[in-house]
Amino acid sequence: MATFKAAYQVLADSLAERGVDISAVKKALKAQWIETPSWGYADSGTRFKVFRQTGAAHTTKEKLQDAAQVHKYTGVAPSVALHIPWDKVDDYAELSAYAASLGLKLGAINPNLFQDNDYMLGSLCSPSASIRRKALDHCLECVEIAKTVGSNNISLWLADGISSPGQDDFRDRKHRLQDTLHELYAAMPNPMRLLIEYKFFEPAFYATDLGDWASSILQAQKLGPRAMVLVDLGHHPLGTNIEQIVAFLIDEGRLGGFHFNNKKFADDDLTVGSINPYELFLIYNELVAGEQDPAVNMDVAYMIDESVNIKPKIASMIQSVVNVQEAYARALLVDRKTLKEAQASGDVVKAEETVLSAYRLDVRPLLAAVREEMGLAPDPLAAYQASGYYEKVCQERAGTAAGGYGFDGA
Amino acid sequence: MATFKAAYQVLADSLAERGVDISAVKKALKAQWIETPSWGYADSGTRFKVFRQTGAAHTTKEKLQDAAQVHKYTGVAPSVALHIPWDKVDDYAELSAYAASLGLKLGAINPNLFQDNDYMLGSLCSPSASIRRKALDHCLECVEIAKTVGSNNISLWLADGISSPGQDDFRDRKHRLQDTLHELYAAMPNPMRLLIEYKFFEPAFYATDLGDWASSILQAQKLGPRAMVLVDLGHHPLGTNIEQIVAFLIDEGRLGGFHFNNKKFADDDLTVGSINPYELFLIYNELVAGEQDPAVNMDVAYMIDESVNIKPKIASMIQSVVNVQEAYARALLVDRKTLKEAQASGDVVKAEETVLSAYRLDVRPLLAAVREEMGLAPDPLAAYQASGYYEKVCQERAGTAAGGYGFDGA
Amino acid sequence: MATFKAAYQVLADSLAERGVDISAVKKALKAQWIETPSWGYADSGTRFKVFRQTGAAHTTKEKLQDAAQVHKYTGVAPSVALHIPWDKVDDYAELSAYAASLGLKLGAINPNLFQDNDYMLGSLCSPSASIRRKALDHCLECVEIAKTVGSNNISLWLADGISSPGQDDFRDRKHRLQDTLHELYAAMPNPMRLLIEYKFFEPAFYATDLGDWASSILQAQKLGPRAMVLVDLGHHPLGTNIEQIVAFLIDEGRLGGFHFNNKKFADDDLTVGSINPYELFLIYNELVAGEQDPAVNMDVAYMIDESVNIKPKIASMIQSVVNVQEAYARALLVDRKTLKEAQASGDVVKAEETVLSAYRLDVRPLLAAVREEMGLAPDPLAAYQASGYYEKVCQERAGTAAGGYGFDGA
Amino acid sequence: MATFKAAYQVLADSLAERGVDISAVKKALKAQWIETPSWGYADSGTRFKVFRQTGAAHTTKEKLQDAAQVHKYTGVAPSVALHIPWDKVDDYAELSAYAASLGLKLGAINPNLFQDNDYMLGSLCSPSASIRRKALDHCLECVEIAKTVGSNNISLWLADGISSPGQDDFRDRKHRLQDTLHELYAAMPNPMRLLIEYKFFEPAFYATDLGDWASSILQAQKLGPRAMVLVDLGHHPLGTNIEQIVAFLIDEGRLGGFHFNNKKFADDDLTVGSINPYELFLIYNELVAGEQDPAVNMDVAYMIDESVNIKPKIASMIQSVVNVQEAYARALLVDRKTLKEAQASGDVVKAEETVLSAYRLDVRPLLAAVREEMGLAPDPLAAYQASGYYEKVCQERAGTAAGGYGFDGA
Repeated sequence: MATFKAAYQVLADSLAERGVDISAVKKALKAQWIETPSWGYADSGTRFKVFRQTGAAHTTKEKLQDAAQVHKYTGVAPSVALHIPWDKVDDYAELSAYAASLGLKLGAINPNLFQDNDYMLGSLCSPSASIRRKALDHCLECVEIAKTVGSNNISLWLADGISSPGQDDFRDRKHRLQDTLHELYAAMPNPMRLLIEYKFFEPAFYATDLGDWASSILQAQKLGPRAMVLVDLGHHPLGTNIEQIVAFLIDEGRLGGFHFNNKKFADDDLTVGSINPYELFLIYNELVAGEQDPAVNMDVAYMIDESVNIKPKIASMIQSVVNVQEAYARALLVDRKTLKEAQASGDVVKAEETVLSAYRLDVRPLLAAVREEMGLAPDPLAAYQASGYYEKVCQERAGTAAGGYGFDGA
Repeated sequence: MATFKAAYQVLADSLAERGVDISAVKKALKAQWIETPSWGYADSGTRFKVFRQTGAAHTTKEKLQDAAQVHKYTGVAPSVALHIPWDKVDDYAELSAYAASLGLKLGAINPNLFQDNDYMLGSLCSPSASIRRKALDHCLECVEIAKTVGSNNISLWLADGISSPGQDDFRDRKHRLQDTLHELYAAMPNPMRLLIEYKFFEPAFYATDLGDWASSILQAQKLGPRAMVLVDLGHHPLGTNIEQIVAFLIDEGRLGGFHFNNKKFADDDLTVGSINPYELFLIYNELVAGEQDPAVNMDVAYMIDESVNIKPKIASMIQSVVNVQEAYARALLVDRKTLKEAQASGDVVKAEETVLSAYRLDVRPLLAAVREEMGLAPDPLAAYQASGYYEKVCQERAGTAAGGYGFDGA
Repeated sequence: MATFKAAYQVLADSLAERGVDISAVKKALKAQWIETPSWGYADSGTRFKVFRQTGAAHTTKEKLQDAAQVHKYTGVAPSVALHIPWDKVDDYAELSAYAASLGLKLGAINPNLFQDNDYMLGSLCSPSASIRRKALDHCLECVEIAKTVGSNNISLWLADGISSPGQDDFRDRKHRLQDTLHELYAAMPNPMRLLIEYKFFEPAFYATDLGDWASSILQAQKLGPRAMVLVDLGHHPLGTNIEQIVAFLIDEGRLGGFHFNNKKFADDDLTVGSINPYELFLIYNELVAGEQDPAVNMDVAYMIDESVNIKPKIASMIQSVVNVQEAYARALLVDRKTLKEAQASGDVVKAEETVLSAYRLDVRPLLAAVREEMGLAPDPLAAYQASGYYEKVCQERAGTAAGGYGFDGA
Repeated sequence: MATFKAAYQVLADSLAERGVDISAVKKALKAQWIETPSWGYADSGTRFKVFRQTGAAHTTKEKLQDAAQVHKYTGVAPSVALHIPWDKVDDYAELSAYAASLGLKLGAINPNLFQDNDYMLGSLCSPSASIRRKALDHCLECVEIAKTVGSNNISLWLADGISSPGQDDFRDRKHRLQDTLHELYAAMPNPMRLLIEYKFFEPAFYATDLGDWASSILQAQKLGPRAMVLVDLGHHPLGTNIEQIVAFLIDEGRLGGFHFNNKKFADDDLTVGSINPYELFLIYNELVAGEQDPAVNMDVAYMIDESVNIKPKIASMIQSVVNVQEAYARALLVDRKTLKEAQASGDVVKAEETVLSAYRLDVRPLLAAVREEMGLAPDPLAAYQASGYYEKVCQERAGTAAGGYGFDGA
């Protein structure tokens, strides 16, 4: 702790010397808002095995309790995304009140368009009109839930696609999607937004109906200004420059939100920042540039979407939130004036070193100081682990039958 | 049918003109042996959903019945791989006799080293000695089953790996694997073989203990001559030249077998030959070259490993067998003398055109003729679909509770 | 030859039985138009080495002479794309007349925006206004050339990008591009089209300004209806479903043309169809579906773009043209009525087999018949190789100094 | 500077508290040895363009002068790799003495097996016996040069491969390579080592004869204990876990050396650590673990291999050296005792956080302190840029004709 304070002082002095307004940086860090997903607190797995974890949440209320722990120790995770029907309840107003009692808000509503035998050949793109209707009705139900709980975001991950060449017609499917989305969008009251996710592949293995950001933004354009694109960090081909896509979406006014996680290979859903933390920083570098650009209007939902299968859920979620905080903190410390000048003059080494210089900073002391000012412990993971919560829920939830949640393969 | 015969005559005349011994080609095609997997007849899915199919097999005997259909119509699928415990029975001798009564043999035994909560951090590579022991004991049980059913192949797919940097020590895990495999190999009587599969990623998402053919062949070298490498066509990074790996394994005397399927992205487990049939042909081009090379000793288990989730299982398996037959037929028709001469003289265009020329052949008439000589219908898929078997099992198996088999995510 | 005729008869009978109007198929094949690139006849190489080939063309007129050979033997390659300044001449009208004297037209004009030291940090996106001006002026010069030679296509491959994180600002570069393209488009008279290519990476290795079809179509939308997207088959991440992108571009009315080649890894520029001929067929399957759809207006420039470095240039180009012909022929033979019905009813196996059934056809006899009706030899490659042209130019061009053309790394 | 010292004090205190022997860490950092490549100081490019830089080195002596600058400011780059014939001179003893006069040693000798028209179809694997002989003789010449200059490393990058299916026989080529390498190895006196590089693809685009570490280690095994594998960080398929390969090569006793650089897509040859610095750290994490493991014998040549085309060469090389230093420094600060305990107990979060904790450190103050103790300026890049050397050589070398060096595409 003494070390943190000394390190913070050195950092603060150095930033002051550079003319950085550290209070503005701290203010931004305190205002950060990272939504965690209800399904991140439940058991999850791969197609080969769902590993059951003692202590994992079984009900939506348990998931909210666990999410409240993440917010309690980080201070920046005040909302929780729901997935329907995994989080289906009889009374959403009551659920919303329960969340509020834990200091939480209910966030994006995620319809499930993949976990029904009817969706074998697609949902909103299915060749069957009645199945498209069913899928659309489910989405409309989610709009109603969003209204009830006061959420402004419908997160649409469309798992539709085909797995054999010839299986279905690409253009027919595109038109079916345009039609169903049109009806969905029409049912969404202002300011509710449709966040259209895309994904390179899986669960379809030959073609995905929304397989890249082109597919998503083209659909969004046809719908209207509240149709936006959602970027999941694991949903691109290897090598894709995600930070550039983020910048382009900002420029087109269509960046609606993120599903944060990390990948080494495919949609691995690993802890965000755990494979290439520099990439996460470079993404935040674009986000901060957008925030600070008066010509840009940003309205971005920052959401974590992870199914880390073999780490304890809450500890892993705290890791994720902290990794995102660090990326944001470093991005806030980029010397943008020097950067712009170096870029304009074609000084590639200086431009790169300017970005790197912020990345190389150890921002833990800064975040510790911010947390202290927020009345939190300087190290959220350590504080959570010392709290005994995990041991308590392991005991309480042992023997409970696992309920209808998460990626259960069933 | 008339068309097939006329087309065959044209093809046969053309081959005769080139000096091809068509009876030898037919003999090879009749002797082809493609093992199908018991799990290919049961429900399967992705991590998001197991789509339940009416008519899918629920018990091992049902799987064998379905496999017998594939053999009945193709004539080249006389054995079935088992997966333990999905195919666990009380009396393996009885199961073997049952298979024989259907005209089948039991083939490779596949231990399951991934579907147990204990294996969360690994099986044969686990940091826990007792879990390694458990995994090894399961493998030894499979050796006993193999002895009982007269199988000479243990197919070892090791799902072990880690999903976070730092999670475990790479070299420690490698040594644990060497030690457990050593004990396993010692328990395997001659001529039983250990087929060591490798896979780029999944279910581990940061590193896999046997992630490439280097890892597998290095382990095989330490064990002995009956330790071989198993090539699954979906287990490589995109772009990998699999036919070259096959040629190199032949050259090193370590090609033990295949798991046939196809991929567009990752381990998609699609119908073999359905994404890039030319690649499958080029692999067979190496296999035929090996078969015809007196300096080479080939002992290869040709096995299908697919979990096509949305096509009816038996029809899909017949498609797969036919695709493999076509690849083999075309490879048998490569003019190898011309090819060698073109290669030796550096005539790249001629060498390529020689290979292409065989690939461009429509070999359906040839395979129809072969089937006719084997007493089979010329078109296996059509014959199967006309047989009423599918409708029969859909009726019989409807309402049956799905049993403990397949990738059920549970 | 006798064999070809017999095989054709069998094929024709079989198609007639299916009700196929073979004369319509032949008519389409005779009308096929595949543009070859001037630079495909000159020496080319990798960054490591340009392999000098005896007989390669050194001047634009030599390139046209070689292209005329390809058209002479295939009958479907009547135009040649030019690359400026590689094909810079004093009198383009004279060049156009020379082409006409060889039976050729001059096709797409390709500006060069990468081979000048000034373009180190970009051309149309450069941070320097004067360099952007220079690049734009070069493009405007190409528009003038296109007017002179009667070409309606400007093929814009923008090599711009950055190779270090932070090097330049993504959004600034995007705006510079919008501005320069706006001026370019304004200078292009109707019906001249701007074909906007995209490429995943290379020569920039961190980000490319037009890196995917999203980037290209968004620019095209801002320009107008004659701004279209150009699809180069080697410019996508591995695994990308190109046929789906083609279908989507058709649907959006923005498919402007192709650069045909093939890849196994990156932008390998290999002979089109040489790595995955099934993929090429599936792309043509979409193109034929578009052609036959009355709701769709297709205006597509089919162009080859290859730099096969180690095969003789003309022979290799003939291989390419033939591969494209085969893909088109097979796609024309898909039973679209059956396919649509199978797709609509969700019969995945039947839909796939319908497509496969056309692909499995050996269309060489059909193409031989088409060529015969066009007064050509049945086997273009063999006829060209027997002509002595290659030996003649090897002798004539030996010792000639290689001129300023092609990918010379200089 | 004051800041650096204060920051160092905080870091040193914190490490002392943890019981770290900081003098041992500093000693290791002072002993680090990073070889830079002669070709890294000359112009280079892509296949599209070699960008000429004012001030780039034209002769081998100029390259050595520039390399001496890198060593002068970093203190850890005392040797230079040569590439023959780019660095061919009449008198290698004189060159060696010249290097010594600059405070440098001559390092690994790199034969060139790709830049000769004869190598169009391969060098050591060519179907032509006389071309194989020529390539082998060139390698033997390099062995003689190595003897003369006192170098113990022959770095063998074999660019051989094929670009068309069928072009040549995989197994024949493998045997040719075995034979030629056997003769080469026999000519190399103890303790000279053969470092066998591998590369996924390029310049061959269908198959590479040494395409992965399996191919290299299998060749090394056949040769003897001084045949080792060389790992180039840009030579793997995307997603490959390089740190695992490094660990496995250490375990097999075959890790011979590195070619450091970084990639986002393919063999991009970017500044090492510039795309994923965490990966570089994880590789060093394995190297430090090996260094500290008494059971392991490490003899690794750490070499940079970059062709950064658009950054000034010397500044870019200093960036690279510093990035490698930072990776090593952080890896030295991993708490290995805690890590091993967490791994052994299966505490995934703790194991990961232990590794991350070292990575998050800002090690610039530590390296500044080390440099100060070595008599160097704390910031090598700033010191070099302030020295005026770049401006001086830009003036001196302007107008000089560029010589026969580097990737000139010619």
